[in-house]
Amino acid sequence: MNVGFVGLGNMGAGIAANLLKAGHSVTVYNRTAAKADALVKQGATFAAGVADACRGEFVMTMLADDHALESVSFGDKGILSTLRKDGIHVSLSTISVALSQKLAAAHAEHGQRYVSAPVFGRPEAAAAAKLFITVAGADDDVAACQPLFDAIGQKTFRFGANPADANLIKLSGNFLISTVIESLAEAMALIGKAGLDQRHYLDFLTSTLFAAPVYKGYGSMIVDKKFTPAGFAAPLGFKDNRLVLAAAQDLKVPLPIASLIYNRFLTLLAQGGEELDWSAISLIAAEDAGQPKRSA
Amino acid sequence: MNVGFVGLGNMGAGIAANLLKAGHSVTVYNRTAAKADALVKQGATFAAGVADACRGEFVMTMLADDHALESVSFGDKGILSTLRKDGIHVSLSTISVALSQKLAAAHAEHGQRYVSAPVFGRPEAAAAAKLFITVAGADDDVAACQPLFDAIGQKTFRFGANPADANLIKLSGNFLISTVIESLAEAMALIGKAGLDQRHYLDFLTSTLFAAPVYKGYGSMIVDKKFTPAGFAAPLGFKDNRLVLAAAQDLKVPLPIASLIYNRFLTLLAQGGEELDWSAISLIAAEDAGQPKRSA
Amino acid sequence: MNVGFVGLGNMGAGIAANLLKAGHSVTVYNRTAAKADALVKQGATFAAGVADACRGEFVMTMLADDHALESVSFGDKGILSTLRKDGIHVSLSTISVALSQKLAAAHAEHGQRYVSAPVFGRPEAAAAAKLFITVAGADDDVAACQPLFDAIGQKTFRFGANPADANLIKLSGNFLISTVIESLAEAMALIGKAGLDQRHYLDFLTSTLFAAPVYKGYGSMIVDKKFTPAGFAAPLGFKDNRLVLAAAQDLKVPLPIASLIYNRFLTLLAQGGEELDWSAISLIAAEDAGQPKRSA
Amino acid sequence: MNVGFVGLGNMGAGIAANLLKAGHSVTVYNRTAAKADALVKQGATFAAGVADACRGEFVMTMLADDHALESVSFGDKGILSTLRKDGIHVSLSTISVALSQKLAAAHAEHGQRYVSAPVFGRPEAAAAAKLFITVAGADDDVAACQPLFDAIGQKTFRFGANPADANLIKLSGNFLISTVIESLAEAMALIGKAGLDQRHYLDFLTSTLFAAPVYKGYGSMIVDKKFTPAGFAAPLGFKDNRLVLAAAQDLKVPLPIASLIYNRFLTLLAQGGEELDWSAISLIAAEDAGQPKRSA
Repeated sequence: MNVGFVGLGNMGAGIAANLLKAGHSVTVYNRTAAKADALVKQGATFAAGVADACRGEFVMTMLADDHALESVSFGDKGILSTLRKDGIHVSLSTISVALSQKLAAAHAEHGQRYVSAPVFGRPEAAAAAKLFITVAGADDDVAACQPLFDAIGQKTFRFGANPADANLIKLSGNFLISTVIESLAEAMALIGKAGLDQRHYLDFLTSTLFAAPVYKGYGSMIVDKKFTPAGFAAPLGFKDNRLVLAAAQDLKVPLPIASLIYNRFLTLLAQGGEELDWSAISLIAAEDAGQPKRSA
Repeated sequence: MNVGFVGLGNMGAGIAANLLKAGHSVTVYNRTAAKADALVKQGATFAAGVADACRGEFVMTMLADDHALESVSFGDKGILSTLRKDGIHVSLSTISVALSQKLAAAHAEHGQRYVSAPVFGRPEAAAAAKLFITVAGADDDVAACQPLFDAIGQKTFRFGANPADANLIKLSGNFLISTVIESLAEAMALIGKAGLDQRHYLDFLTSTLFAAPVYKGYGSMIVDKKFTPAGFAAPLGFKDNRLVLAAAQDLKVPLPIASLIYNRFLTLLAQGGEELDWSAISLIAAEDAGQPKRSA
Repeated sequence: MNVGFVGLGNMGAGIAANLLKAGHSVTVYNRTAAKADALVKQGATFAAGVADACRGEFVMTMLADDHALESVSFGDKGILSTLRKDGIHVSLSTISVALSQKLAAAHAEHGQRYVSAPVFGRPEAAAAAKLFITVAGADDDVAACQPLFDAIGQKTFRFGANPADANLIKLSGNFLISTVIESLAEAMALIGKAGLDQRHYLDFLTSTLFAAPVYKGYGSMIVDKKFTPAGFAAPLGFKDNRLVLAAAQDLKVPLPIASLIYNRFLTLLAQGGEELDWSAISLIAAEDAGQPKRSA
Repeated sequence: MNVGFVGLGNMGAGIAANLLKAGHSVTVYNRTAAKADALVKQGATFAAGVADACRGEFVMTMLADDHALESVSFGDKGILSTLRKDGIHVSLSTISVALSQKLAAAHAEHGQRYVSAPVFGRPEAAAAAKLFITVAGADDDVAACQPLFDAIGQKTFRFGANPADANLIKLSGNFLISTVIESLAEAMALIGKAGLDQRHYLDFLTSTLFAAPVYKGYGSMIVDKKFTPAGFAAPLGFKDNRLVLAAAQDLKVPLPIASLIYNRFLTLLAQGGEELDWSAISLIAAEDAGQPKRSA
């Protein structure tokens, strides 16, 4: 299959590589062109602009935020104005519910198709084609994309025909991950200040009631206070926190734990944590308990 | 082995039955004597008072709260005054860190031994001998108790020589479970108000990043709004919430999510939820979002 | 002085009337023209469009939100494109810090002057010329406006030369008012559930340490559960809450009480409180305590 | 009048001095006897034990916490066992609702009378006889005490016949003061980080809607970051916070702002703030915003 790919960051680079490995013909575009080099060596075609990535039936986008996706979509020579009739825009990015609704309407107006397919997994999972993909869109459109999803993820989950629903699923999923980070941070602050071994406690948790990947992965980072290099940087985590709060505001749903975590992010960023992984919000619970914030 | 067992509630009855099944000789005591009948039919010896349950080397206690354990321990003809020298009191109850410290000191003073072994698992797990047991105490004492633990649980986890440490582990574990309940409650309020299928969303979560028993079990209760009969009633959940807050206060550790959940319990109980399972605190997030609180 | 006045809602109508009473020549514009009738009878000139209100040296705006002010300012035949060189736009509205910064820059570009002068006081205070006015702008510009401020308020407070600073002052002032509402709501829920007389308690508070207008006014509304007609409707209060959170987010300042109140507003609106005064968020503390939410 | 006075701390010393100035005959007792010296020089009689302070019709107590009042009341040769029949115990301390109920019952049983009269005001107000006194008790008993109240306070407020009600009033009053501290702390963190003058902002607030003593006094301390010497030390403030939470828990009333402040106190104390005034919880909002926590 012929697919354009826009956005070669931490996540996108690994995903595009997996499309190539699966035998698809991939044309890659990135604002900073140098990031395309490695993929071109693996067989990708270089696109000088977004339009060049829109010459096939499919274009996939994996961008950092609403602003970036809006500019490649609606901009001059962007996806809307260059993708063929019936072409499918597959949006993998974690974006607002509102932008997803806007894109769905705009593509329909242009006679194009739009599938929302945000993914769960950190860069390692993207590189290993182990992403979980949450998809919403018309049945036929999703079916057409399935070979692409099979190339990049371990499993696809359908969430109906309304594309923006997949974005709400993604945002509420990330919200739940953030609750695990904050909850473990508080429990570890308690256990640690009592003088107990945090690693041993984590091993107990993750071999019993909390035997889930998210507890294992983030639990380790919290116990080791290892937040660099950032797999998912604090400003991106904060962005997702604000997106779920925005979606909840539109629906008039209070999310008190999300509000609490919102304030954790503000504190982390106010104190200079931009470069750290988002799980570094766990430092605040430790510091509030009077424990040293940073490992030496 | 010869073991006394005090406290035949939801949890204790199942545990005592498993001790019998494993071939131990069990003498059972309960304040409401009728609860002993079924176990006596299964081969247990009936104890008319606590003292009668303290004639062997071991006495296990599984009681609802600090007050109940204090009264069988320190009361006239209680455990302290009737257990033999070198006898071992195995405390399975979820109690305060402070009481566990007090019991450790009191037993030492009386030349007795004390092992703290709070358990994780709801009544079904107790009945099925599938509990997780978190144990702290002197090595020899714990080793002596191991056959008893093997009879009632699926796995034993050691947390050092200081008995009260196991109680802190238990309380922080229950705190983490309560964070899962509240987090899922908020996410489900959001998903539900958006018109998405909560069960389908839960299935997605628990087959991916949140594939843990606690998400499956409590997630189902939240989605189905099924809070009766209470496996673990709200007042008991509230008690544990207050115990972890008390332990954290002594150590000067803020636990903001525990504080938030504290207020959820107050609201649930103020609105008449005493008979519901503790996971019914999830009703409040739904109601705050303007959704009907009770299923018809 | 010759002044245009745009926005004749609850607050603006009273303010414009006071300008007339002080002898100024006032040209009034409102989107719903009928609202100008009463003022025209009092001597105001009717403006058919924003441009008609921009023919003098001064134009004052008193609008509900950013959107409304943006549209009269930047729209076709709006203030920017019709106000004379050196004319002064006096913005009384409670708007975002960001919009105030944008307006300051735009007016400077057009050779016009911009004074930010948000006001404190409810509609009764506006009608009685008892507003407190918080002003920021260039010294000469503010001096030129002083006769107008004297006509509508009881006192003017200067906050430097940067117009947006006055907006931050206004937003943080409204935030403080909202903290009084929520704090009193919680205290009254406690006192009320204990069976004590809330009115007597309020009288005690406001004749001792809390002898401030905001405690007296809002305290009475909370005790009487009298939230209609809304002097300041819940959606407007929520807007201001979001504006202070937005300003704080830009500055990376967590405001946990503002976050708590944010969730109170969401709950109030989710449960149908759009028509109530913003102090009706106090109903939620009472309901969470199990007390009847609405007075009969 | 003949009055014993027990507890000569920051508050009690000033109160006892004012009783002397008003011409009453005062017998003073303090655990650390040296604190009585200055009062003896002013004409007080020295009491070697609590019993010596219980020889007249009245005994007033002003102690730091429940524990201290319980021990002078119920201890061997304490107030209960030494005060005459019909003697009146006037409790000025800020204590729990539960202890006040217990004292009322115990005094009734001993044929003695009990008036609860907690006071509002810091040490300066106590020294200046400017306290506000909130009184509950039987009409005759309160009337009998009125000359004493007139000697130490500026005004007495009656709250019915049930002594413990005055304690709830006191605790909820202190809760409201703490909400002012936290609210101002957050607003000042915002204003300060924006580069505005906090003192000027405070002057504006306290000359308009927030013209109340509590805003003026605590606002100054927060702006100046002047928390030593402590007029009311953080551990005492924390005690009162826990007492209002305990009273609210008994009544099943969530107080989310009190919970938030509870965590502020834990953080302040975890970070070494025991010696600071309770208003030093305001440092945390500033630090969470990335501002330097301590003035140099």
